[in-house]
Amino acid sequence: MSQPMSREAFEAKLRAIGDARYHDKHPFHGMLHGGDCTQDQVRAWVLNRYCYQAAIPRKDAALMSRCEEIEMRRAWRSRIEDHDGSAGEEGGIARWLRLAEAVGFDRRYVASMTGALPACKFAVEAYVRFVRDATLLEAVASSLTELFAPKIHRDRIAGLLRHYEFADENSLAYFRTRLDQAPKDVAFGLAYVLEHADTAEKQEAAAAALIFKTDVLWAQLDAIYGAYVSPGVPPPGAWAPGEGLKDVDRHG
Amino acid sequence: MSQPMSREAFEAKLRAIGDARYHDKHPFHGMLHGGDCTQDQVRAWVLNRYCYQAAIPRKDAALMSRCEEIEMRRAWRSRIEDHDGSAGEEGGIARWLRLAEAVGFDRRYVASMTGALPACKFAVEAYVRFVRDATLLEAVASSLTELFAPKIHRDRIAGLLRHYEFADENSLAYFRTRLDQAPKDVAFGLAYVLEHADTAEKQEAAAAALIFKTDVLWAQLDAIYGAYVSPGVPPPGAWAPGEGLKDVDRHG
Repeated sequence: MSQPMSREAFEAKLRAIGDARYHDKHPFHGMLHGGDCTQDQVRAWVLNRYCYQAAIPRKDAALMSRCEEIEMRRAWRSRIEDHDGSAGEEGGIARWLRLAEAVGFDRRYVASMTGALPACKFAVEAYVRFVRDATLLEAVASSLTELFAPKIHRDRIAGLLRHYEFADENSLAYFRTRLDQAPKDVAFGLAYVLEHADTAEKQEAAAAALIFKTDVLWAQLDAIYGAYVSPGVPPPGAWAPGEGLKDVDRHG
Repeated sequence: MSQPMSREAFEAKLRAIGDARYHDKHPFHGMLHGGDCTQDQVRAWVLNRYCYQAAIPRKDAALMSRCEEIEMRRAWRSRIEDHDGSAGEEGGIARWLRLAEAVGFDRRYVASMTGALPACKFAVEAYVRFVRDATLLEAVASSLTELFAPKIHRDRIAGLLRHYEFADENSLAYFRTRLDQAPKDVAFGLAYVLEHADTAEKQEAAAAALIFKTDVLWAQLDAIYGAYVSPGVPPPGAWAPGEGLKDVDRHG
């Protein structure tokens, strides 16, 4: 049996996975943040990314359903609250729907996921099932893409504000809020993984889980790129530009 | 295809399941509430029932992980909060451990579940898995034993206070609190089941889920009765009277 890496070396390995594989490297994000997306390409991204947002509380509940430690369940609970919101307090899913409206969609159309790309839905459900079925350590490790999220959120806020008319503090509230929430979440998750991955085998499994999660994110952008950039052929039944818009945008 | 029952007839059918099968009919509960349990039999019950209490938040998280409706997840969330507690606020699991201490246990021994009966652990895990794998309707229907819980909690508070020295408002806080919490939970669950069991087949499945849950509860009392009443032979490794007590009770 090989020895486990030191905590520092293992953390560096996890961070290197982000450097190599996080979806901020995907060409679609380059286009999006650089102002090179058409209005419909932005819409395609907002529409499809909704599937991911909507699934996050189910994923976090699946993790909690595996977790035998009261203190850990309590700590994890805030993620669900952050996304689902509370009585009189909007959550991340509702904030994403504000973004959807800002780019012209009828929010009910987006929430229905009718026009979302099957490949995006498959990727998201693969994530929920992974968290439900893998070890608790792997489930937590798969959340560690949050290590890399603050940078993409900052780039996104800056890029969208600079390049797109729909972008303002209201429509981008989702990203602004995540900048506050993600660091607390990731501090807990990273500490858990560093503590519990105490053999070489577990470190390997945790790293593989994080790689899996980068695949989940990347696969969604591949699907969006294929359907709406190049070759630009949406699969049968997927959203076609013009569909699902608010009346004012449809006729305006 | 047969026609579904009316809502009223279906609700009556669900309530009849409780009348016939809820564990308030089990001879162990007769002994417990009637003051006929020895101190060690009460301890066996408290120790083993802890497994069920500890699993409830995992069960509820499993249900939430199946649930695509934000509003429903939000409504269900309070069950986890009720059991796990919040920062500075004790939950149901902690209250159960107060009861465990009141009957003489070291709370760490109870929380470790080391001495719990395998049959109780199996029953509880069968419940968590059922909620994880059955339909959402069946998962919700399996929670409807709460329809029958207020009566057993009232009987229990009265019976324990009358017959046992350990019983006071502190040790019985779990049951007192559940009297407030259960009605809100069951109102939501019952309304959900009555609305969503809209075919004869779904009504049948929901009723079967509730029957399954009554089996889960009954099986725990059977195991406790067998190990600690008659024949009174705990399985290998299970708690033996005298084990796991607080120092003061061990030597006092």
